[in-house]
Amino acid sequence: MEDQSHEERWRQRTEIPLAVASLLFLGAYATRVLAHGLPQPWRDVCVVVALATWALFAVDYAVRWRMSGLGLKYVRTHGLDTLVLLLPLLRPLRVVRLYEAVQMRHGEPRLTLYARVMVYAGLSAVLLGFSGALAVYQHEHAAPGANIRTFGDAVWWTCTTLSTVGYGDLAPVTFVGRLVAIGLMACGLGLLGAVTGSFSSWLIQVFTLEGDKREQRGRH
Amino acid sequence: MEDQSHEERWRQRTEIPLAVASLLFLGAYATRVLAHGLPQPWRDVCVVVALATWALFAVDYAVRWRMSGLGLKYVRTHGLDTLVLLLPLLRPLRVVRLYEAVQMRHGEPRLTLYARVMVYAGLSAVLLGFSGALAVYQHEHAAPGANIRTFGDAVWWTCTTLSTVGYGDLAPVTFVGRLVAIGLMACGLGLLGAVTGSFSSWLIQVFTLEGDKREQRGRH
Amino acid sequence: MEDQSHEERWRQRTEIPLAVASLLFLGAYATRVLAHGLPQPWRDVCVVVALATWALFAVDYAVRWRMSGLGLKYVRTHGLDTLVLLLPLLRPLRVVRLYEAVQMRHGEPRLTLYARVMVYAGLSAVLLGFSGALAVYQHEHAAPGANIRTFGDAVWWTCTTLSTVGYGDLAPVTFVGRLVAIGLMACGLGLLGAVTGSFSSWLIQVFTLEGDKREQRGRH
Amino acid sequence: MEDQSHEERWRQRTEIPLAVASLLFLGAYATRVLAHGLPQPWRDVCVVVALATWALFAVDYAVRWRMSGLGLKYVRTHGLDTLVLLLPLLRPLRVVRLYEAVQMRHGEPRLTLYARVMVYAGLSAVLLGFSGALAVYQHEHAAPGANIRTFGDAVWWTCTTLSTVGYGDLAPVTFVGRLVAIGLMACGLGLLGAVTGSFSSWLIQVFTLEGDKREQRGRH
Repeated sequence: MEDQSHEERWRQRTEIPLAVASLLFLGAYATRVLAHGLPQPWRDVCVVVALATWALFAVDYAVRWRMSGLGLKYVRTHGLDTLVLLLPLLRPLRVVRLYEAVQMRHGEPRLTLYARVMVYAGLSAVLLGFSGALAVYQHEHAAPGANIRTFGDAVWWTCTTLSTVGYGDLAPVTFVGRLVAIGLMACGLGLLGAVTGSFSSWLIQVFTLEGDKREQRGRH
Repeated sequence: MEDQSHEERWRQRTEIPLAVASLLFLGAYATRVLAHGLPQPWRDVCVVVALATWALFAVDYAVRWRMSGLGLKYVRTHGLDTLVLLLPLLRPLRVVRLYEAVQMRHGEPRLTLYARVMVYAGLSAVLLGFSGALAVYQHEHAAPGANIRTFGDAVWWTCTTLSTVGYGDLAPVTFVGRLVAIGLMACGLGLLGAVTGSFSSWLIQVFTLEGDKREQRGRH
Repeated sequence: MEDQSHEERWRQRTEIPLAVASLLFLGAYATRVLAHGLPQPWRDVCVVVALATWALFAVDYAVRWRMSGLGLKYVRTHGLDTLVLLLPLLRPLRVVRLYEAVQMRHGEPRLTLYARVMVYAGLSAVLLGFSGALAVYQHEHAAPGANIRTFGDAVWWTCTTLSTVGYGDLAPVTFVGRLVAIGLMACGLGLLGAVTGSFSSWLIQVFTLEGDKREQRGRH
Repeated sequence: MEDQSHEERWRQRTEIPLAVASLLFLGAYATRVLAHGLPQPWRDVCVVVALATWALFAVDYAVRWRMSGLGLKYVRTHGLDTLVLLLPLLRPLRVVRLYEAVQMRHGEPRLTLYARVMVYAGLSAVLLGFSGALAVYQHEHAAPGANIRTFGDAVWWTCTTLSTVGYGDLAPVTFVGRLVAIGLMACGLGLLGAVTGSFSSWLIQVFTLEGDKREQRGRH
């Protein structure tokens, strides 16, 4: 019980600094990729900021692991935390957690189960797509024979990919660009499948509740 | 109980006018986009009709919200109504509701849960696709380098997009056209996922019932 | 109880003739479309055979409806039969039914629920795809600017469409070809979604059973 | 009970040899296809090794079938084993089984139901994709008018196909290449649908557990 409360206190104290660090990480990465005119020293600053915030997340994860006293079992029971550690671009999800923490102080969590899955998976997919568009743009925009030339193209390509529509008007041609695309498909389609599945379950739930309500009303 | 019956009476009285207004809205928007030869005054009439009917829906939503006396809780518990308010092109769904209201007077609702989800989500997807085709046609048909030239092309493009097949023989090239396409994917794929999921569940239900019936018959 | 046994007897007596008629129907349609060198009289024979078998199915449906004495309720409770009546190219499914009827005489049906859904929906999708390929080939192979030139092309196009991959190396360009394609997407994707969903459920069931068995074995 | 323990002992004794044979099979096939400069005798060795290991699997299947004393019922109740026998390129899944067998000795299996389905179906899809890429590369890379020229192209094409994105920048043009592609779609999409579905279910489970834990914590 003592350890539990230790971990709780740690979590509460680090909530806001980590949320700020998450936004810093994403901002530094995006600036590094998109701002072409940036002088070299500033570009180095961006890299340092990104690495520093990543180190911060690793420290936070290690401290919480240590506190839990669970050994390897922790990795399995906190699968989501581990995944987020390995994919730092999903970090800004912390902001969602912050939003929930604020809600907790005003009573119950506001969102139903399906809505929470949709929000988490949907936001993860959006952030994954944003970082994927950044990475593909970085490796494709100057490659010979490439057709993804602007960041707008990269975003459009990401949307057609994540929706599995895949018009093929734009497609990566470099090795790294295709690797990023494969990673994007593997992660993004799972996440969006979860969003679609939850939306479907939620819709069925809404219709079931409406049917019950109507039946009840019919009895009066 | 008094408020409940107030809301009920409001709902019953506004059912038919709102269904008519929904069709007016869609008709005005479609005429505005498709009828190229229409003189300017008539085009303005279309815009005015569309805005007026939208205002009507907002008033209806506000009145029902007020009547419920639930505050912000109403927005959450009537999620479908709120969504439909924000996407006025989904309005003609009112006609489905009218059909159901007529059925209610003759006893129970006729459709099973899965069938109702399929009908609602499927019709929503059809209407979304129709309005998406309208919007894409409007922004693409005169753009340089565009390949969506006729409304028939736009409808075909919409079908290949919503089914996620995405041949790529036609694809939007303008900024607004791509924005509409992304919105169409985001909403449409969720809705069609719900249709496919419900169809699958319904099919399993049909086979379960048939198996039970056969077993029962086998016993006699 | 008397009506039930009447319907049963009718069903048993018509089982084999209807299965033969189903194959005749598909054969006549396919011959009509694929055999270019066929003299006109034979082509007319094919059309007559197809229409005659369709009429046969309609008569069978009407007789069973009449026997059930259920009125419109019959249409709803026998949804699958009604669907098959409207899409005669799904008729050869009768053969699956015949196979099941044979199995019934040797005790219980052999296939589990999910396997039956997979077999029915999968076979329906295959037959739908075959007839879709026939129809698209018929309308595209001689059209100016078309790229679906042989029946092999049409089959390949059908597979890329039903899997929603949609490379776009082949795509219909005529109005009727696109209409058929839209129908194929609407029906086929629902059916294949049911196959995928059932396969997924079946796999989870297999793993659950295996886990139980292993656990049990572990206890000994 | 005696038969059961016989089968158990057989399974335990053949576990490691079969896992090695599986890797041999895949290695021989891949070498045969990818190593162009290999002299003819070595190519023949590869074919012989592949056929010999396949024969080994057939013998193992036959022995276990015989031991079970179940007749045809065995084929149905061990569906996964039968499938793996018919698609020898899925054989390396044995390695997953080996990993599980090792875990079994240290107590319970470590992975939850959904995680196990994801690992099995996901690994199967990866191996299926790898062998599909090999086969398509073999038949396409020297065909006139083909655009899949290197093994890297084949892998990229496989990923865009299995994710159903299908850009169409690369697509098979030969008869055999298209046949392999159709088989890849039919098997791969089912497997990946199972992965996506299990991931979705797992995510909902994680959120349910987290919600329960939080509620519990809130009560203290």
